[in-house]
Amino acid sequence: MAEHQVAIQGQPQPIRVPTGTLLVEAIERSDISLTQPCGGQGRCGRCVVKVDAGAVRMRSTLRLAPEDLEQGYALACQSVIEADVHVVVPPQEKIERLLTSDRTAIEVEVPVEYDPRRHQAIQRVALDIQPPGPDDQRDDWTRLQNALRSWREETGLPHTSHPVRVALPLLARLGHVLRGANWQVAAVLDTHSWDLPEAPDRLIDLQPAPISENQPLWGVALDIGTTTITLWLVDLINGKVRAQLAEYNGQVARGEDVISRIIYASKNDGGREMQSLVLKTINDLIELACKRVGARPEEIVKAVVSGNTTMIHLFLGIPAATIRLSPFVPAANHFPLLQAGETGLNIHPAATIDCLPGVASYVGADITAGVLSSGLYQTDRVTLFMDIGTNGEMVLGCKDWLVTCACSAGPAFEGAGVQDGMRATKGAIEEVWINGHTYEPTIRVIGGTKPRGLCGSGLISLLAELFLTGVVDKGGNINLHLDSTRVRKGDHGPEYVLVWKEEAAHGRDIVITRVDIDNLLRAKAAVYAGFTVLSERVGVPLETVEQVLVGGAFGQYINVEKAIEIGLLPDLPWDRFHFLGNTSVQGAYRALLDWRLRHKVETIADGMTYVELSADNAFYEAFTSALFLPHTDLSRFPSVASAMGALERVKPLKEAEEL
Amino acid sequence: MAEHQVAIQGQPQPIRVPTGTLLVEAIERSDISLTQPCGGQGRCGRCVVKVDAGAVRMRSTLRLAPEDLEQGYALACQSVIEADVHVVVPPQEKIERLLTSDRTAIEVEVPVEYDPRRHQAIQRVALDIQPPGPDDQRDDWTRLQNALRSWREETGLPHTSHPVRVALPLLARLGHVLRGANWQVAAVLDTHSWDLPEAPDRLIDLQPAPISENQPLWGVALDIGTTTITLWLVDLINGKVRAQLAEYNGQVARGEDVISRIIYASKNDGGREMQSLVLKTINDLIELACKRVGARPEEIVKAVVSGNTTMIHLFLGIPAATIRLSPFVPAANHFPLLQAGETGLNIHPAATIDCLPGVASYVGADITAGVLSSGLYQTDRVTLFMDIGTNGEMVLGCKDWLVTCACSAGPAFEGAGVQDGMRATKGAIEEVWINGHTYEPTIRVIGGTKPRGLCGSGLISLLAELFLTGVVDKGGNINLHLDSTRVRKGDHGPEYVLVWKEEAAHGRDIVITRVDIDNLLRAKAAVYAGFTVLSERVGVPLETVEQVLVGGAFGQYINVEKAIEIGLLPDLPWDRFHFLGNTSVQGAYRALLDWRLRHKVETIADGMTYVELSADNAFYEAFTSALFLPHTDLSRFPSVASAMGALERVKPLKEAEEL
Repeated sequence: MAEHQVAIQGQPQPIRVPTGTLLVEAIERSDISLTQPCGGQGRCGRCVVKVDAGAVRMRSTLRLAPEDLEQGYALACQSVIEADVHVVVPPQEKIERLLTSDRTAIEVEVPVEYDPRRHQAIQRVALDIQPPGPDDQRDDWTRLQNALRSWREETGLPHTSHPVRVALPLLARLGHVLRGANWQVAAVLDTHSWDLPEAPDRLIDLQPAPISENQPLWGVALDIGTTTITLWLVDLINGKVRAQLAEYNGQVARGEDVISRIIYASKNDGGREMQSLVLKTINDLIELACKRVGARPEEIVKAVVSGNTTMIHLFLGIPAATIRLSPFVPAANHFPLLQAGETGLNIHPAATIDCLPGVASYVGADITAGVLSSGLYQTDRVTLFMDIGTNGEMVLGCKDWLVTCACSAGPAFEGAGVQDGMRATKGAIEEVWINGHTYEPTIRVIGGTKPRGLCGSGLISLLAELFLTGVVDKGGNINLHLDSTRVRKGDHGPEYVLVWKEEAAHGRDIVITRVDIDNLLRAKAAVYAGFTVLSERVGVPLETVEQVLVGGAFGQYINVEKAIEIGLLPDLPWDRFHFLGNTSVQGAYRALLDWRLRHKVETIADGMTYVELSADNAFYEAFTSALFLPHTDLSRFPSVASAMGALERVKPLKEAEEL
Repeated sequence: MAEHQVAIQGQPQPIRVPTGTLLVEAIERSDISLTQPCGGQGRCGRCVVKVDAGAVRMRSTLRLAPEDLEQGYALACQSVIEADVHVVVPPQEKIERLLTSDRTAIEVEVPVEYDPRRHQAIQRVALDIQPPGPDDQRDDWTRLQNALRSWREETGLPHTSHPVRVALPLLARLGHVLRGANWQVAAVLDTHSWDLPEAPDRLIDLQPAPISENQPLWGVALDIGTTTITLWLVDLINGKVRAQLAEYNGQVARGEDVISRIIYASKNDGGREMQSLVLKTINDLIELACKRVGARPEEIVKAVVSGNTTMIHLFLGIPAATIRLSPFVPAANHFPLLQAGETGLNIHPAATIDCLPGVASYVGADITAGVLSSGLYQTDRVTLFMDIGTNGEMVLGCKDWLVTCACSAGPAFEGAGVQDGMRATKGAIEEVWINGHTYEPTIRVIGGTKPRGLCGSGLISLLAELFLTGVVDKGGNINLHLDSTRVRKGDHGPEYVLVWKEEAAHGRDIVITRVDIDNLLRAKAAVYAGFTVLSERVGVPLETVEQVLVGGAFGQYINVEKAIEIGLLPDLPWDRFHFLGNTSVQGAYRALLDWRLRHKVETIADGMTYVELSADNAFYEAFTSALFLPHTDLSRFPSVASAMGALERVKPLKEAEEL
């Protein structure tokens, strides 16, 4: 049999292999370890290499776009060597995630257009105040206000004759600070209110001068998620995010999802307890963030708060009971501007607390913030924005119109309601590949430890693999007749064993059951039905959506291909999907930086048309049709149909070769 | 000797008396008891009667104006019967004062122009709110705001797109109240802010409907005086004052005057203690007032607060130390609008607390309130407004201009710094008459009990009497050579015994000493010098002042004649003097009723020119000249000069008759 030479860039000498050898096998003979989590079935795309010279025969190009092919990219596991080749192996991705608070840290770029003098509502102003004397007995407060008026004039801001607003405790400290600082002070002002554009400036703090212009002025952007609270500590002087932290919402101990939280909060003193719990989490994060940058919490003079409607209610101590009862009406979607002292946040007591507005009980500030930070509000392109967690919230639209809905997906994608489900922390299986012959799985575990269970992305991945390998049929039934010990009848009916107890961190088999699959099907069907109804309501077919923006920490880790394969995401070219991470905290950050964007959030919230799905027949029908893998109507998922076909073709070929 | 017939209206038969009998003696023979506190010297004017027919020879007409004489009025003690007469004796004044809290109660008329719908900032609005349903899922807060917007439209108020402001606790109660009231509620709104005329409405309270239109809506007007705190409980629906209460400021225990209060407050936790003390007094008054009208304190939704600058500072917990140190600058003259919860007032926590503005450290809100309630700000006539207490504050001006100053009179007129001085309570001697022959006094005591000491008006009265009867000379020296045991040398130098210990409540002689007189002279000289400087500063001679308005509870009881006699008040015709009582609480009341007047107070405060006397040479000179009785320059007090002359003439005549 003819031999061929495989030269690998960066390797001292070429490898010789017989004709017909898979490229992946040739590379494995070098000291390069190729990542092949799908077990060499050409589905994960992780083994992509570039064939510089020579040719390979490609069995499958499932993962590759035409441009990729043109440039010579090939999947090593699907490339049969039939000539000498020269290949470049890209650096292999290091699969590693940080734990809890650090895993959400991302590189945040300050918007290039950010001009703190013009866009930042919080201003620190150095003042040289005229001291009093026998011929000038004006009171301290008048003196300070006159100095501030001069500052407005010098800065070219519109003149206002209204007195600066101030809270009593600062007014009480005024004389002491002014004299202690020898009348040279820096005033920290809030110069813009979303609820009253012509409101006078509000004095938050007064500090003895001199203060270097570069000395940080602290603000925080907060996302109060049902599961996770994310905090960014921002230097308002330059807009830089100086610390990013996240922690489980302390309320988790009193209910995993918003509904159970509301129920708990509605009983006795539950509301107060819920408020204390979330405040504790936030205040701890604030303290930690401050320590990291060498600041003190009371130096934080503004917080912009995002989160779903229930979370904002519970944070503010507003009863949320009506949110879960028909007709699902919250106490408020727009919240008054507050001062930290009113809320229990341990920052400067006069700091502005600005809770972003929501649209409805289940389309909260996290979504309006997401529409802001994703840029959806200003794009010409028809865009689907979604944030999938316990609820799937989604927005369809562009700069001219926005429709939104929320479907109760249930907590399956957050790992709840599934036997071995768990949150996306250390020990969670987040990706799965199943060998189509042996039905043996390969898994990726967060933190690289022994697995304890499956998080949302792991469940999606597993379900897709089970379906594509035929372990599970389109109805979600597990095929117990397969030649594998991994399929069996368990205590809760048919199940597939993903991890044997010997490999599991807790010494128990990790399985997915028929019941779990039903839960997942219902969750994904609800989300897909949401898309369907929105698109039908506005007459925009899903396939014409020009981009899909996926927010939420969970979205960040979804494998698009697998999500499409189970029918969770619509079947669009992958390049239309963009994973944006926590768009809620990003929106809070943008609103914190730029008062114009804060006003924009109001416009966004007011301009969104909310579609209630709970009593919608069209939704129910769409939901029922979506309870299959990937969908009753396979024509909606052409790429999945084609993948299924491709796999059918690949499989016999491979089997033929093995013979 | 010829006999004449004296017919007295209302008496069954005439009285026959010999020629030359004094009318007073004739009347005393009937069953009418004429009040003659001056001992029949023709100085007090209390024995005035009308001679309808016949003629009397009048020895003195000191108390009578030309018009009075024309109409036949005569002083019974100075009228010698030389023909048959018919006389009318007016009902005799009942000398009786109420004690402490009740003595300041006055008849308050609601301003005729008061239209609660147009002038009252606080509005109670009945709302019929659209309940939510499957097709209308707007949040509760939006629903309420829409209803309020409709109300504005229907009422013809200007449209505002700004959200109604609300405090968090009410927002938290919103859903409960709305549903509990089946969406029929009454909203209590504050619709005007002095500091931001275009501010959006603020929701204070929400009550279940129906509420009768006449059901009271409570507000309070407060005057925080150094000595006394006065509270009026007002029904804002009709403007009526439903309860008037006054009580000693609880801070009195920590200092009698503002200076000692400031010193106490500046030490350790003294400021906090001072604040607690004044709050305790006010909250007790509020509770008592509410009990009287069957209301609950939390039903009070607005308080307008007046008081001197120090009292407002201590009330709000703002350090007042700089008020007493050169250059005498307060922390603030204008205070932000507050909510009761911020201040410690036990009324509705979201009630508006509006502290009226002051002008300077020693010209506070009590004076601007007085300028408002006295009408000084809108009069064409050149007016002197004054409020004499520990400090003498005064304002000279008219609707076009206002100058003001404060002179440190010292606490003598409040009964402090005088050996037997006391506050104007039960047992205080408030008026004195001395017999010019015997030097024996007649006294009037508050409450009609045995005397304990002298209050301010009693001291003025005593000093005037001592001077006019020659017990004291114009330099304030006591004439120890008089034929009376009442003048003597005491432990503190010369003194006059007003009450022998047998007659005194505490069993000690009640005296006035030379030292006391010096204190009183300094106090009255400071006040008079204040007038002098103000009038010289603006070039308006004192004698051209068209009216003198005297405010303050103390002013209410001053005897003008005697105050002029000692040179405390300028020598103007008595009908130019008007005693207005507590103009500070009256001003607070007016500002509470009518938002336009509240704005007017700002204009008044800003428009007043403050003249600092502490380092003023002209003041010092005027002060020195005024240290005499009534003044170095007797030509400034023509009526006193003439009274002195008249007494000289009366005395020999009477003595001659007695021979």
